[in-house]
Amino acid sequence: MKLNSTGIALAVVATVAAGSAWAVRDEPIQPIQPAKVTNPAKVELGKRLFFDPRLSRSGFISCNSCHNLSMGGSDNLQTSIGHNWTKGPINAPTVLNSSMAVAQFWDGRAKDLKEQAGGPIANPGEMAFTHDLAVDVLQSIPGYVAEFKAVYGSSRVEIDKVTDAIAAFEETLVTPGSAFDKWLQGDDKALNKRELAGYKLFKDSGCVACHNGPAVGGSSFQKMGLVEPYVTKSGAEGRAGVTGKDEDRFNFKVPTLRNVELTYPYFHDGQAQTLEEAVDVMGRLQLGRKYSKEEIGQIVAFLKTLTGDQPSFILPLLPPSSNETPRPVPFD
Amino acid sequence: MKLNSTGIALAVVATVAAGSAWAVRDEPIQPIQPAKVTNPAKVELGKRLFFDPRLSRSGFISCNSCHNLSMGGSDNLQTSIGHNWTKGPINAPTVLNSSMAVAQFWDGRAKDLKEQAGGPIANPGEMAFTHDLAVDVLQSIPGYVAEFKAVYGSSRVEIDKVTDAIAAFEETLVTPGSAFDKWLQGDDKALNKRELAGYKLFKDSGCVACHNGPAVGGSSFQKMGLVEPYVTKSGAEGRAGVTGKDEDRFNFKVPTLRNVELTYPYFHDGQAQTLEEAVDVMGRLQLGRKYSKEEIGQIVAFLKTLTGDQPSFILPLLPPSSNETPRPVPFD
Repeated sequence: MKLNSTGIALAVVATVAAGSAWAVRDEPIQPIQPAKVTNPAKVELGKRLFFDPRLSRSGFISCNSCHNLSMGGSDNLQTSIGHNWTKGPINAPTVLNSSMAVAQFWDGRAKDLKEQAGGPIANPGEMAFTHDLAVDVLQSIPGYVAEFKAVYGSSRVEIDKVTDAIAAFEETLVTPGSAFDKWLQGDDKALNKRELAGYKLFKDSGCVACHNGPAVGGSSFQKMGLVEPYVTKSGAEGRAGVTGKDEDRFNFKVPTLRNVELTYPYFHDGQAQTLEEAVDVMGRLQLGRKYSKEEIGQIVAFLKTLTGDQPSFILPLLPPSSNETPRPVPFD
Repeated sequence: MKLNSTGIALAVVATVAAGSAWAVRDEPIQPIQPAKVTNPAKVELGKRLFFDPRLSRSGFISCNSCHNLSMGGSDNLQTSIGHNWTKGPINAPTVLNSSMAVAQFWDGRAKDLKEQAGGPIANPGEMAFTHDLAVDVLQSIPGYVAEFKAVYGSSRVEIDKVTDAIAAFEETLVTPGSAFDKWLQGDDKALNKRELAGYKLFKDSGCVACHNGPAVGGSSFQKMGLVEPYVTKSGAEGRAGVTGKDEDRFNFKVPTLRNVELTYPYFHDGQAQTLEEAVDVMGRLQLGRKYSKEEIGQIVAFLKTLTGDQPSFILPLLPPSSNETPRPVPFD
């Protein structure tokens, strides 16, 4: 490599050209790093479990039902549909890039993806199963038993292993390669003028105070309705349900804005159907600023540059149940 | 190629070795031919539509929900779950190799896959949408409009094109490569003694009268309960609902036995949970023969050799809705 008085800068550019996710621009948002897979067999097992509806009482609902990897890792519904067509209390957050979040769920009640993965399985309004029953099902399926043995060194299926494997798969669900990341990495042509103006406005008007870091969010809890109260029919009270503190009422985890073009509708109650509406509400309620239609258009143009390469993999095949496998109970 | 007095036979063996699906054994069952894709863009469009829950009123149910390609093209439920958790009247047949069937649905009310594909979309107990609303949704999604234009030469989405594309994808869902097909193609080691004994029994005791051809079924309608009446709580009357003829009561399309290991539970009412039970019931009710436990084990061993290579493809990504896209209505 040729070195001169600007040797360091040249080295950085060379690294970028070689496909690194390193940023050459110093911005409050950083590029998404590609996933580093250290245990591919565990990821494969987790992928199968993520797609397996036998983790639900009905045999009909899998992790992928509400975190659909064909649809930005979300279900694109205001709130999700659970067992027996139960209407969920909250909008399903995307699973994409969720490994970067400070905690899991809108109220942060799970500290990481492993802890999160056990929640919906046992939630009566979601998959409506129990951890014990889910383990019994998996233990009865020879194909799974062989995989658990290969990954964990023992044929004994345990819920800790189930959630560990699902989390390992979810950690691979990152979306590098967005236009914005290319711009961060030094490609001046990656954003057009309108998108760049949108980013400048996003940054200068204060959105980055909460929507920052590689996930453009997910790193803090903030009050929904800081300047003006948020009007909603949703009963969700956010962080207060975890901490028991009154000052945490309506504190929610700041959602990632990565792939936000794909993860409509928006907010914890899924009330905003479009990005334009979401930007308008955020400006007024969180920043006390009424964006013009043109400004909203610019910010939305910027937000759409945050769509990265979606996870790409072969649809997993699930090992068949055996004669001993407890059968699903969709109708009570 | 070396030719001698047995030149023709050598040529056949060489073709087999090169991966042809041609049979060298003259049996009532023929090998599955690999899919011939003539229009890959149409197949890709159909694949996306097959996975898209926006073809349902709720935005939650796709073709893949009940014909899950991770699970042998079935949902492994006794009867399916439809809109608003409606309990379906009949077991969802596998979509795998369904292009070979004489007609679609258990009662044959659709003449082909294209006609079939429109059914569940508009069925109030399944996807609960209408063809017009489904077309409106797709027409509002720029990514789909571009694909329809590329495939059909016009940006106008029509239900005929939707079902045509889905059918084109479904036609690719064939499963060559099973152990039994390898045996048909001349590989003597593809089946063990027990599996071969099971096939001999399957053939000699009359199962092949109905379960024949490449799909090992699907080519005729037969009365469920020929020798002894079939006892069921299911109200399904089969072919009579289509023809209006009393003699067609309880006449159902003979299901394919390809991948039957994966498509439990069995029969139109999903009443048989295991292959052993299904073989026992079929023997008694259709053939008037009580198979011994050993015989059932042999036939089941043969049936498991009918599991072929499952369709393998990248999970499709769905184009996002636009601001104009009508939103799903999961809860009325």
